[in-house]
Amino acid sequence: MNVGLIGAGRIGRIHAGNISRHIPQARLTRVVDVAPAAAEWARELGIPRVGTDVHDILGDPGINAVVICSSTSTHADLVVKAAENGKHIFCEKPLDTSPQGARRAIAAAEKAGVRLQVGFNRRFDHNFARVRELVKAGAVGRPHIVRITSRDPAPPSAEYVKVSGGIFLDMTIHDFDMARFLSGAEVTEVFARGAVLVDPAIGAAGDVDTAIITLTFDNGCLGVIDNSRSAAYGYDQRVEVFGSAGSASCSNDTPTSVSLATKQSVSGDTPLYFFLERYRQAFIDEMTAFVEAVRTSGPVPVGGNDGLQALLIALAAGRSLKEGRPVRLDEVKG
Amino acid sequence: MNVGLIGAGRIGRIHAGNISRHIPQARLTRVVDVAPAAAEWARELGIPRVGTDVHDILGDPGINAVVICSSTSTHADLVVKAAENGKHIFCEKPLDTSPQGARRAIAAAEKAGVRLQVGFNRRFDHNFARVRELVKAGAVGRPHIVRITSRDPAPPSAEYVKVSGGIFLDMTIHDFDMARFLSGAEVTEVFARGAVLVDPAIGAAGDVDTAIITLTFDNGCLGVIDNSRSAAYGYDQRVEVFGSAGSASCSNDTPTSVSLATKQSVSGDTPLYFFLERYRQAFIDEMTAFVEAVRTSGPVPVGGNDGLQALLIALAAGRSLKEGRPVRLDEVKG
Amino acid sequence: MNVGLIGAGRIGRIHAGNISRHIPQARLTRVVDVAPAAAEWARELGIPRVGTDVHDILGDPGINAVVICSSTSTHADLVVKAAENGKHIFCEKPLDTSPQGARRAIAAAEKAGVRLQVGFNRRFDHNFARVRELVKAGAVGRPHIVRITSRDPAPPSAEYVKVSGGIFLDMTIHDFDMARFLSGAEVTEVFARGAVLVDPAIGAAGDVDTAIITLTFDNGCLGVIDNSRSAAYGYDQRVEVFGSAGSASCSNDTPTSVSLATKQSVSGDTPLYFFLERYRQAFIDEMTAFVEAVRTSGPVPVGGNDGLQALLIALAAGRSLKEGRPVRLDEVKG
Amino acid sequence: MNVGLIGAGRIGRIHAGNISRHIPQARLTRVVDVAPAAAEWARELGIPRVGTDVHDILGDPGINAVVICSSTSTHADLVVKAAENGKHIFCEKPLDTSPQGARRAIAAAEKAGVRLQVGFNRRFDHNFARVRELVKAGAVGRPHIVRITSRDPAPPSAEYVKVSGGIFLDMTIHDFDMARFLSGAEVTEVFARGAVLVDPAIGAAGDVDTAIITLTFDNGCLGVIDNSRSAAYGYDQRVEVFGSAGSASCSNDTPTSVSLATKQSVSGDTPLYFFLERYRQAFIDEMTAFVEAVRTSGPVPVGGNDGLQALLIALAAGRSLKEGRPVRLDEVKG
Repeated sequence: MNVGLIGAGRIGRIHAGNISRHIPQARLTRVVDVAPAAAEWARELGIPRVGTDVHDILGDPGINAVVICSSTSTHADLVVKAAENGKHIFCEKPLDTSPQGARRAIAAAEKAGVRLQVGFNRRFDHNFARVRELVKAGAVGRPHIVRITSRDPAPPSAEYVKVSGGIFLDMTIHDFDMARFLSGAEVTEVFARGAVLVDPAIGAAGDVDTAIITLTFDNGCLGVIDNSRSAAYGYDQRVEVFGSAGSASCSNDTPTSVSLATKQSVSGDTPLYFFLERYRQAFIDEMTAFVEAVRTSGPVPVGGNDGLQALLIALAAGRSLKEGRPVRLDEVKG
Repeated sequence: MNVGLIGAGRIGRIHAGNISRHIPQARLTRVVDVAPAAAEWARELGIPRVGTDVHDILGDPGINAVVICSSTSTHADLVVKAAENGKHIFCEKPLDTSPQGARRAIAAAEKAGVRLQVGFNRRFDHNFARVRELVKAGAVGRPHIVRITSRDPAPPSAEYVKVSGGIFLDMTIHDFDMARFLSGAEVTEVFARGAVLVDPAIGAAGDVDTAIITLTFDNGCLGVIDNSRSAAYGYDQRVEVFGSAGSASCSNDTPTSVSLATKQSVSGDTPLYFFLERYRQAFIDEMTAFVEAVRTSGPVPVGGNDGLQALLIALAAGRSLKEGRPVRLDEVKG
Repeated sequence: MNVGLIGAGRIGRIHAGNISRHIPQARLTRVVDVAPAAAEWARELGIPRVGTDVHDILGDPGINAVVICSSTSTHADLVVKAAENGKHIFCEKPLDTSPQGARRAIAAAEKAGVRLQVGFNRRFDHNFARVRELVKAGAVGRPHIVRITSRDPAPPSAEYVKVSGGIFLDMTIHDFDMARFLSGAEVTEVFARGAVLVDPAIGAAGDVDTAIITLTFDNGCLGVIDNSRSAAYGYDQRVEVFGSAGSASCSNDTPTSVSLATKQSVSGDTPLYFFLERYRQAFIDEMTAFVEAVRTSGPVPVGGNDGLQALLIALAAGRSLKEGRPVRLDEVKG
Repeated sequence: MNVGLIGAGRIGRIHAGNISRHIPQARLTRVVDVAPAAAEWARELGIPRVGTDVHDILGDPGINAVVICSSTSTHADLVVKAAENGKHIFCEKPLDTSPQGARRAIAAAEKAGVRLQVGFNRRFDHNFARVRELVKAGAVGRPHIVRITSRDPAPPSAEYVKVSGGIFLDMTIHDFDMARFLSGAEVTEVFARGAVLVDPAIGAAGDVDTAIITLTFDNGCLGVIDNSRSAAYGYDQRVEVFGSAGSASCSNDTPTSVSLATKQSVSGDTPLYFFLERYRQAFIDEMTAFVEAVRTSGPVPVGGNDGLQALLIALAAGRSLKEGRPVRLDEVKG
């Protein structure tokens, strides 16, 4: 199975490295990036063909699947074109910033009969996957409250914030997907409160850096997400599903389990610093799952509709924040 | 210092026992309760005088202070009368179910120059008090998010729910006070979402049993509380204050620290079962603090305004739940 | 039930306070101490009669039980005399420093038909008692290894060390009893290695301040104790019983469960400082159990033979340290 | 840098896979194994040349380094021959079962001026390495007690036990090295007590399956190791260094950090099952360090003398167990 990669930025290089080193069933044969500088990196990784024209990949009949890691605004169009060229597709989140675009991408993949997987890597995290397993097995009974803490170690630049689509589309979208994944239910309403407490420049860019989001699910369950762009102690990624029979939760991963007891305190490691460290294996596992789905013609673990639903929740959260009221998902479904 | 106790129900008996056994600086000399049956219990505890008429206490010149543990509807009137009789007052929460009543009680105590302490015992919990200390000392920097989990082990009867004033006045009011205590800031707006997931009878009684409440503080900080009337594993009482420099949090207390590792799992104790176990020492410490405030003519640690503010937040939460929108505290201040 | 207390030093005052405040079934009616200064303390506690002559207690027909907290060298004689006077006896550890003395005490109590309980308070610690329960219930299967860590927060003075009988009789004797308690088996052989690493003055006094002791039990199980006179982070008291089906262990108790996460580390409390804090409730519970045993004519939970066996292990450890070889208990049984 | 591997059993295959997948600076060009069946496995891994004759490797001038994973009895001879052929050497533990053999191997490597690294992989474990760092940095002050718990999840077969050299040479030798590594000191005396509690067949084979070993170090520090061949809950690998200023310790690694709270208990994962899981990264890191030492002509992190010292401690432990007395290392140095 030959794979082409579009977009050799930070996340693209992670996927490229993982395919090359950890997934013997797939071969990364082409990389394209708008920046010619990416070529050098790709050649070092031993990728045979490198270019700047996306048609080199889309038009290559030897390529079975594409991994789309270019900027968000290009996602939907690339998915459509890839589908039209019969390629299976792994697309980074979000599918698009509009429900229309996301639906267009989904429809194209369906029409072409190709696999479309969306890059919600956190579903493959060992801790979160285990919580989901326990929930699915009924260990916590019927879910009542889904609680997600998701805090980045350091805020992005104001420049990045301006083009990011806002915290809900850029950062919380992972948590929205996690809420659906953990509960096994659909979100029907969102209420979001936000604040600018970390960096005034984020506020000046029209965004917030701290947020609390309340979710209502179609099965009656409630959810709550708390976000911050800046946790002094590192990447804080914890979830809990509380239900009628108990609660499943996880703490952060740390570099070591070492504890130092002194006259002052008993202290241990802070969490793994950021997503590259925390989700290292999850990135490998999501791509392995994609490759397996293509190879075996099986279902992808995270499909187009998952991308669409998370997008709708993010849009509802954005409107809730702006209008100061709870927003139903059917108000934003376009 | 001689103390009279009004209302010998569950909480009244806890305070009576604590004064008798743990606070040598105070002597419980009279108990009154509307139910004559309380007399037997009081005599067993060695309390000299027991009766059913509140004026036996209010009119006794040898009594310096009263502890009011009667039903909520009587609190404000009793505070006013006790103040008029020159007694210092410890009053169980809530002060009243209306801002007007609470203000009347506060004004009476101020006018009479007597101490008025409200029974927010959780401020004296070793874990929460330590989190507050760390916040106050600047260990977490400027607070950004206050997060409170507060879940009871088992739901009350539907009969109790009907007369309780609802979950926010009965249960969450402690968490509202905790949010103010931990953050050192005032709440300005509340959004509440609730659900009936534990017991349909609670819904039939017009209440919810599961809730997520978002708080906005006057210093920009955000807060979130999650409540359930039924946690299978016992009383779940955890708080976190997340700020610019880090995060202070606590886990539940357990009967022992013992861990059992077997082929299946590594397991430990569930939390202490309910508030009598978890807050045993906190009940002693709040009463000791009240006795000290009276003895030394010092300030009480939890005053009438603390009772009023928590009430206002509870009322705003109730309206938010009913009207499906965020409610500002000035909408309910009466 | 009336109790007389002999020896109003540190431990004597703990027992006196516990009987007065926490055990309504018993009344502390007399205290004697060789130092007249103890009288003032006793009067403040409200004890009716205070003196310096032990016969005031032994000869008082109104006293049912004595609590012996005087210096070790007086224990055996006092037990014998108390027994001859028909008093039930709670005696601090060790019963005596020689097997002969301990046996004489035990025989006297048996002959007189009075209860004799030895002050191994740690059996009443909530954590250790729970580990024992699990072992007894078969949760770890057949015990293979008993592991005890027992470290004091600060070394005693060299003066104290000189008269203490050495670390094994003074400090480790509690751990020897714990090893028997946890395993439910008898020690047959001891190997001890010691070092002077904390304070050269302890070495000059002929003792060690750091030790590792290996125990062999009559059921084939092995045990190991590590001791230090100085743990910078406070009182370190942990046990583990490892068996064919798993392992039960406990960690230290701490003042709070609060955790502070900062850029540097995630830190929490050090253990409760010393035995007064850690074993506060255990001291109450052992005395309550003694009072109950006397009141109900039931068996005491820690009897004379328990005192004798721990003493024999301590003597074997001392000889092992001196002679550099494992020592069987029958070599020291006198 | 080209590497040849001798012995393609379980551990040999781990090293081969790690070199192939994780160490781009080295190339595994030849594998030899006495069993022809190993050839198929090696060809699947893409190793160019596979055979049964060790001279194919030793005589190949294109090979810079050898990795010796054959049976223990062949180690010393192969080290000598590899050194004489100018190859750098990574040799699995133990170097030999006799001090003479180990010294012969060390001398040959020194004479030839080649690197000789011994396979004490645990020094590269993230937890143990961090404890060592803290000790080295003085965080615990002067070490007083080194405590190591090392328990396997399941016992080996009696057939394996018969040829293993006994528990101390086969299993505890890693802990002996760890004791030296953590303390930074040399062991001078050993006392070992063992028992057959897991499997009578191990006793019939002349070995023990449970052991407590006390170590005395040349700096006065004491050490204790507890071993079992069968921990029901999985691989138990914990260390603690307790010193004058505090204590550094680690707990086991687990598959996830997930905790499940139910009416019965709060439970979490058992440790990673065995050494392949727990030390997966450590195996990669030790080989990477070897390759780096060869490439940069730097010192190896675990040298021949480390292999010799651990062997001497193991021999002393064996004699101590047999003779029932502490044994000094100079009694076994041959």
